[in-house]
Order: sequence, then structure tokens, then C-alpha cells
Amino acid sequence: MSDKKVYNIGIIGYGGMGSYHPELAKGVEEVKFVGSYDIKEERQKLACERGLKTYDSLDDLLADEIIDIVLIATPNDVHKEIAIKAMEAGKHVVCEKPVTVSSADLQDMIDASERTGKLLVVHQNRRWDEDFLTIKKIYDEKMLGEVFAIESRVHGSRGIPGDWRQEKEHGGGMVLDWGVHILDQALLMVNEKVKKVYATLTHVTNQLVDDGFRAELTFESGLKYILEVGTSNFITLPRWYMLGNNGTAIIENWGMDARVVCARGKSEEDIVPVRTAAGLTKTMAPRRDDTISETVVPLVHGNIKEFYKNVAAYLSGKEEIIVKLPQVMRVMKLMEAIFESAEKQQVVDFE
Amino acid sequence: MSDKKVYNIGIIGYGGMGSYHPELAKGVEEVKFVGSYDIKEERQKLACERGLKTYDSLDDLLADEIIDIVLIATPNDVHKEIAIKAMEAGKHVVCEKPVTVSSADLQDMIDASERTGKLLVVHQNRRWDEDFLTIKKIYDEKMLGEVFAIESRVHGSRGIPGDWRQEKEHGGGMVLDWGVHILDQALLMVNEKVKKVYATLTHVTNQLVDDGFRAELTFESGLKYILEVGTSNFITLPRWYMLGNNGTAIIENWGMDARVVCARGKSEEDIVPVRTAAGLTKTMAPRRDDTISETVVPLVHGNIKEFYKNVAAYLSGKEEIIVKLPQVMRVMKLMEAIFESAEKQQVVDFE
Repeated sequence: MSDKKVYNIGIIGYGGMGSYHPELAKGVEEVKFVGSYDIKEERQKLACERGLKTYDSLDDLLADEIIDIVLIATPNDVHKEIAIKAMEAGKHVVCEKPVTVSSADLQDMIDASERTGKLLVVHQNRRWDEDFLTIKKIYDEKMLGEVFAIESRVHGSRGIPGDWRQEKEHGGGMVLDWGVHILDQALLMVNEKVKKVYATLTHVTNQLVDDGFRAELTFESGLKYILEVGTSNFITLPRWYMLGNNGTAIIENWGMDARVVCARGKSEEDIVPVRTAAGLTKTMAPRRDDTISETVVPLVHGNIKEFYKNVAAYLSGKEEIIVKLPQVMRVMKLMEAIFESAEKQQVVDFE
Repeated sequence: MSDKKVYNIGIIGYGGMGSYHPELAKGVEEVKFVGSYDIKEERQKLACERGLKTYDSLDDLLADEIIDIVLIATPNDVHKEIAIKAMEAGKHVVCEKPVTVSSADLQDMIDASERTGKLLVVHQNRRWDEDFLTIKKIYDEKMLGEVFAIESRVHGSRGIPGDWRQEKEHGGGMVLDWGVHILDQALLMVNEKVKKVYATLTHVTNQLVDDGFRAELTFESGLKYILEVGTSNFITLPRWYMLGNNGTAIIENWGMDARVVCARGKSEEDIVPVRTAAGLTKTMAPRRDDTISETVVPLVHGNIKEFYKNVAAYLSGKEEIIVKLPQVMRVMKLMEAIFESAEKQQVVDFE
């Protein structure tokens, strides 16, 4: 801990995410991106053009005393090695997600953090996503009564990005890339033990790593939480769908308000059955308008600037860290349970 | 078999479905609804008003030589007893779905059919539903390339109908009531063995029987088939969602055309990332319009009249029966696998 006013950050891996962090932290006066190292010449050049000091090696960057914090935004498989080296060199570490590729590796990183007294924090930026904050508000405020199912879907149709994310040895695949976000959100939303995990992976566009998955978590209360990532979905299903005993909520897509429909009153004697070509159904007939109420829950504002503000406030002894390592470990173990369930084609016990 | 021109039908159980069959068969000249028996006085009265001969007992109806076919539309738990009695009395049997409540009971019914030489056929009317015929056409014609996932959902928000369908001893619950339809459709669509079954039940409005379920079938090719029935869904998810390696199909609701979006071309170099409050994603960015093609597949016409036409044609030796008992048995065993999986909270091997 220190009470410095401004923490200097050096970036390791100036790729898509690494180069995006300065933008994410724009306006956060407590941190300053000052340097960068990348193995690719053209990325070094770009960093230099953008006013960052570039280093010839990781060791050079770590040896520079002006650097307080190292941001690691490399492929996933080398996070661990770099993070431990950085902490041992006296730097705090902000690490891109997934923090690493196994819980054993993460434990080594946590041990290093404890041994060196340096911060290790993971950039779980999607905790600040507005769709998540909105559905969480609906859950927290019990707008639907007792929630019994939550469905969280992220659908694209481009396959896996054509970089290291397609490769197993670099920690590619959609469980690690997107699963890590939506699992983190699940555990933040539902404050219960996860008892069971069942999951299947897809390999539509890629045989080496999963290009999507479906997982079902059974929480202690019986609540079912479905998580789905797809990269061959040319039509998308809603981002969020939540069922309570008194109503349903839906968020169709990023940036859209939530729609909530709840029951009011029970008198349904004049049900008009749905007639299809081959039958009729009263059970599945829509409710009459006067027995439901529909409301719009506007998107809850999220401010991703809080991430770096919190890192600085933590280092100044003013705040708890928001993204805690035990939370990160729990998500990592859940991802391992997903891989285990998919491989065994069985339900896996969890907590 | 006989070559009668018109087969006379007697109805056992003149409730919602029993009284609906004459309407379903209207215009089918090969069958005629002539009589009815119901344990409720007011239903007897209604049948009489509608020109049906009413009987004082099941035995009386079965003893009437003018009756060729008995339609059984009672609660599920007594289908078996009545069907066997009817066949032994020399009647052919049309039975409402689910044919009975266990595969052992069904085997007894099949044995009786073979012993007596009488037809036993189940009214799986939703084989003629237009949404099903439309999605099946998309599957059969490989419009999406190789299909790897099919999702079939039936969502209502009224709980279970407030009659015997709420009671375990009468064979209530949504697996038996609606599962029997959408499982039958699944097995008709995908001509492969089902290797694995995983299912969970809901008890949101009822503790005695399931008021909904989610099941995942893994077919031999790896194709995943999700089936979902919900009765506390105030906002519904699409009736059909199908994913192929080259495109996606959706049918939003009963009576709606299918929408199909397929890939064309791969050049996606100028991806515009989706920016959310807390991050950006290229993986989940929508495709540019010029890299996809969107088409509407109009609803395929279905004619439920074919059910009774086929029964008559079969009895006249002119056609195979459409709804075959081995198919019905397979669905019954799948429903048992669903109950077993839900109870054990485990994946169950099937075929």
C-alpha cells in the first residue's frame, strides 16, 4: 500500500485489449498508462506513436521503477508466468480475464500475491455491463417474486476470432473467453452455493477449442441458471431471460431496457384457447391483458471507470478491492467443472 | 380389417378433448361419431343435445354392435383398462395422448392389440401442427447446413389446468401432457438414436406433478435437442430455434412463418465491434447485411383430417397406420427417462 496520488501503469501485450485499457481508464486521474511492451514490432510502434514509452523486453519494463502496476493483456497461457514475475519484481498486477487457464495455476498466482504483498486483480469488466446491472436489480428487488430460472445468453455468428483464441495451448475457446464473464455475473447475482453443473460444448467451426457451450448450474435453493455462448447463431435469442413465480423479465439485447410482465389477479375463466392447425390448447393460451401488468425497467447505468478508480483506492488503503481473488477462483473452478461435465457427459457435483 | 365405407365411433369421456374430436374429424366421410359415454351427467346431456346416442355405462357402449371404434378421452390413468376392455369387446381403439402413464402399461395395451387383432392408435395430433411441419421442412431440406441444435419450447403462464391434470394419480403433469407431443415431434424429425437424456422438472405452481420441464436429448450424431415446457412464462421464448453450421431458423410463435438467416461469404474484415457500457466485443458483433441472406419460409400447411382418414384407410387395408405403436413406445420410454434423470439429477443413457 502507498498513498501515491497517481499510479503508473505499464502494459504487457499491446493487442486489442491491451491498447483498449487506456481508453477504458480515460478520465481516471489516479492512474496513468506510461509504458508498453509487446512481442510484435508493429504494436510497439503503435504504442510509441500513442505516447507510451516502449521497452525492449518484459524484464526492462519490470526493471523500470516508475512503473507501479503492470497490466497483463497477453494470450491467456502466459498470464501466470508474467504475473508472478511482475509481483516478484515489486509490481502490482492487473490481469486480463481469464486470469489463467486452471485453478492450480491461479493458486500459484495467489500464493505469489500473498508472498510479495502485491495486488493481483482481474479485469472482470462485465460486472459493469448495464444489461447485467439491470437484470440484477430485477433479481435483487424481487420484482418477479421468487426467481426459479435465469437464462444468460451471448450469441454471435462469426465463430471464434481468428487469433490465439482459436488455439488450445494459448487458452482459447469460448468457455474461457466469454464463459468467464457470464459465470462471474451468475455468482455475483445469486448468493448461494452451486450444487450441480451440467454442460456441453460445441465445435461447429473449430475442433481444437470449444466455440460455444451450454451450462446449467443448480443452486442450493433449486434455482436453475442456464448459461449459453454461441458463435454460430445467425439469429440471436435474448441476452437475459428470468422467470419468477409471479412474472418474467427479458432483456433482448445489449443496450436495451428490460421488459417485465407480472401476474395480477387470477380470474381467468374466459380463457380463449390457442387454436393451431392440429389442435387447441388452453394451457398455453396467452393471458388476458387485464390479468397481467407490463413494465419497462430502464437500463441501470454502469461506469467501467470504477475499475481503475477502485484499484487506485485499494492501493491507497481507501477501499476494498472489488474483484476479489476468491471470487475469481470460484469462477475458475466452475469453468473446470464445465469442462469436466462436458467430457464425462455427466452432471458434476460442485459445492 | 374390413372394407366398410363408414366407421362408427363411440366416445368414452366427453370432456374438452372428447367433445372436440367430432369437430376435428368434420368432413371426414369415412368416420362418424355416433355415441358417447361420460361419468358426468352434464356431459351426457351435452352429448345428447349434440345428437350423440348416450349410454348408461362403458359396458353398454362396448356391447353396441354399431360401434366400430372407441375413442378414449378420459384421464390418462384409465386409458389402459378401457382400451384393453374395448379391444377385447371387438372394438378398434383411438386413444388420446399420452396413451398411458408407463411403458409397462403400454406394453399390456400393445399385447391386447396383438391378441385381439384390433387397432390401437394414439391421437398424436401435433404431428400435423404447421409450426412443426415448417421447421421439419427446414431440417429435411438442410437449409441450414448441418444442424447441431434444435430447441422446441412451449410456454404459457397459467400453470396447469385446474382439473385432473394437476393430479399425479390421474397421470397429470406437463411431461405427460405436452412433453408427449414435443418428444414425438423430436423423434419424427431426427432419424437417429437418442444416446443421452438430461432433464429437470419445475414445481412452481404445483408440488404434486411437474408444471414444466427442460430436457436435453443427445442424438447419436451429437445433435442436441432441447425441449422445454413452461407454465409460468409470462413472456415466451420462440416456439422453435434451430442452429446449423451455415445458418439459423426461428419460428416465434404458433401460426407464424419461419425466418431463416444463413451465411454467405466470409469477408468480415471490417467488423464493427459491439460496444457495451463496460467493454467491446468483436466476437458477438452482428454480421454485415451483405454477408448474410435472410429468407422467410412460409408455414407448411397441415391437415389434421388426415388422422381419421388414415385410421379408416388402415382399417380398410388401404394404408399403413401413421401413428405407429413402436413410435409411441419410444416416446413413453423417453418420458420415463426424463423422470429418471430429473429424480437422480443425472444424465441417463437411452438407446
